[in-house]
Order: sequence, then structure tokens, then C-alpha cells
Amino acid sequence: MHMKTAIPDFTQQEIDAIYRVMAQRRDVRHFVPDAVDPTVLTRILGAAHLAPSVGLMQPWRFIRIQDAALRAQMVQLVEAERDCTASALGERADAFLRLKVEGLRECGEVIVVALMGQREAHIFGRRTMPEMDLASVACAIQNMWLASRAEGLGMGWVSLFEPQALAQLLAIPPGATPVAIICLGHVEKFYPKPMLEMEAWAQRRTLVDLVYTDQWGGAV
Amino acid sequence: MHMKTAIPDFTQQEIDAIYRVMAQRRDVRHFVPDAVDPTVLTRILGAAHLAPSVGLMQPWRFIRIQDAALRAQMVQLVEAERDCTASALGERADAFLRLKVEGLRECGEVIVVALMGQREAHIFGRRTMPEMDLASVACAIQNMWLASRAEGLGMGWVSLFEPQALAQLLAIPPGATPVAIICLGHVEKFYPKPMLEMEAWAQRRTLVDLVYTDQWGGAV
Repeated sequence: MHMKTAIPDFTQQEIDAIYRVMAQRRDVRHFVPDAVDPTVLTRILGAAHLAPSVGLMQPWRFIRIQDAALRAQMVQLVEAERDCTASALGERADAFLRLKVEGLRECGEVIVVALMGQREAHIFGRRTMPEMDLASVACAIQNMWLASRAEGLGMGWVSLFEPQALAQLLAIPPGATPVAIICLGHVEKFYPKPMLEMEAWAQRRTLVDLVYTDQWGGAV
Repeated sequence: MHMKTAIPDFTQQEIDAIYRVMAQRRDVRHFVPDAVDPTVLTRILGAAHLAPSVGLMQPWRFIRIQDAALRAQMVQLVEAERDCTASALGERADAFLRLKVEGLRECGEVIVVALMGQREAHIFGRRTMPEMDLASVACAIQNMWLASRAEGLGMGWVSLFEPQALAQLLAIPPGATPVAIICLGHVEKFYPKPMLEMEAWAQRRTLVDLVYTDQWGGAV
């Protein structure tokens, strides 16, 4: 006989806080430029490093951008991709160009997150799906997002860039690849809803429509 | 002049709980088979749906496996891939085969997480990196992991399967693709460290070695 072991090592208030930080986390594009306390930044990067990774490969690498000229070059890369994206969007180009899609100029800290090189040596959990390394890095970034929100800081994941161009700018070696420009910093307030929902770019789906039983589309 | 706005909407105890759940989350492979309360499962799936997604595309779909025969077929798929992985690992094959790599037979709930189809219509944030859809799904799974741990439940992400075979088994349509078999359930205890670290498969890296300044390898 099995014992159904309750493990009540989080209080109800703590559990509520964990759900609440998920609910109040936002992809932030509006920052005030005050500096981020280095101790807080270290805690947030520490949260990333607590993430799960396939085969414990820990494929995440972080490049903190401190040089202002370098940040300016990154702004140019993002602007170029913003134009390319607008062109690719066709009839939604104008709506897209009205959105504020990043806060790279204003935010207190910019961190580039990259996949390490020589990942092909890591086969455990990746033989059929090598992209599980990216999944691990995304888990790390989600931890950063939640930690930032708990600390009262905003964070945005910018993916509007050409990875090869950014790799070249940051001397990222062949095999490694950047996957995120993270904007982190102080904010005046957090959006009450996702900004793309507030701007009517897209609507939130209802969870029940996304959950099936036993096969795709199977009724719950 | 900018105001550095502190937003103290999480207490220190709550912030500590958020970091602690990240630190105590584990990839779990040892379960007891008691049922998961459906209300708790709904909360955990709700946490997934709170995740960020590129362009707010919400690409995650969840298939709850309730049919025992179906679960048994999934066990076979995972066993087959475990053998293939062992072969691919060469000299580490024996060490790999000694590891318990999943708890699919014992866990109370099995959830397959898949990427939706027709994702090519979503260009925002994905023109140069279409794999950002997987990154969004991984953020959702990380939320599930943290919510499960807070609720005292174990969770494991199994990626040892051939996606096309699993897609066929679950009638997942062309274009959509499974990325995770999630094992969820009650546990006797949580590992004090990652199981792959306890079993000496891999060691944890030191964070400071993974953080650079201004370019790859740049000293902090």
C-alpha cells in the first residue's frame, strides 16, 4: 500500500505568491533607466542557473552588455529586423510598427543569453529532439522572468535580431548561438495584462480549448 | 528626472519562497501512484497558460493521457528510444542504462505537451528564429514544474521518444508536434540535488564561469 504523502513545505501564502508572480509577470518594453543593483542581478542570474536542463548539460551562457557603443549596435540590429518583420507581416505591418516591441535603449541592464557550443556531445534526451537544449535555456529565462518580477523589476525577451549578426558582434564562436536579448530594469508600473493583449494584437485563449484527452482534439 | 520606483508588491517571505521553489524543483523520476487531485491539475495547467509566448501565440497544447493501454504504448516508445540513446552513447551506454530516466509507469498523471500546428502564420519574434515557439512552450512547462513543486508534487519532462511515432499514437496532426511527455504525481520525497548530479552523470557548473561581459568569454 502506498502512502499519499503530502509534502507541505510551502505555506498557503507562499503557494499563492508563486502563482501570483506567474500571473503578474509581463514581457516588459517600458523601462526607466535607473541602474539595477548588481546584487539583485546576481540573484536573477542565479535563478536562471537553477533551471532544469536536459541531461544536466546547463547549456546557458550569459553576456552582460556594459559597453554603450555595443548596446547602440545591438539597437541597430533590432531595428533592422523590426523592418524586415514588418515587411514579412504584409497587411499587419502598420499595426506591428505602432507597437513598442522592446526597451533596449532605456533598460538598466542588457543580457544576451546564448546556447553554448559543442552541444552535439550531449545526447541524453536530445537524440531525436536536439532542440531540447533551447528548451532548457528557455526554462532558465522563465526563472529569470519570475525572479525579476518578484524583485519588482521588469524584463523583456527580445528575439527580433539576426542571430548570426549578433554572434559576430559579440564574438560568439561557431556552434554557440544567441537566442535572447534580455532587457532588465526598473519600471514605473507593470502592465495589468500582456501588452499585446492591451494593444489588441492578439487575445488570450481559454485554457479549456487547449486541453485534450487521450488524443489531439479529444474532449476532456 | 526619473524616479527609481520600488514596487514592493511581494514581501520578503514571498520573494524567498519564489527563489526556494526554483532551488527545490527537481526533474522527478520516482513517484508513488496515487491520483492527482483534478483541481490541483487544473491549477498546474493554469500556471502553464500564464507563461509568456512569442507574439502572444500561445502555441502550447496539452493531451491528458487517461487510457491505460495508451500509456503502455507510450512506455514502449520511451523504452525503444532509451535503447537507441544507449547505443548512441557508446562508452557511456552502461552508465546511462543504470539510471532511472523516467517514471511513466508509476506517476499519477501523464500529460503530453505539443506545439500547435499552423505556426508559420506567426511571424512576430520568429522571422529569424522560428524555434521561439518551442521556447514559449518550455516557459509554460517551467511554470508547471514550479507550480507542481509548490503543491508538493513531483514532475519530470521525458524527451526520450521519437516525435513522429508519438504524434501518430495520439493523432497529432501534421504541423503540430509533441515536445514533452510530462510525468506528474505524488512522491515520497524530493531529491536533495538533481538526480543526475547525485548519480554522478554530470556536475553542476559554477555560475561565474557562465557569465561574460561584452563578448563571449569576456571577464566579468
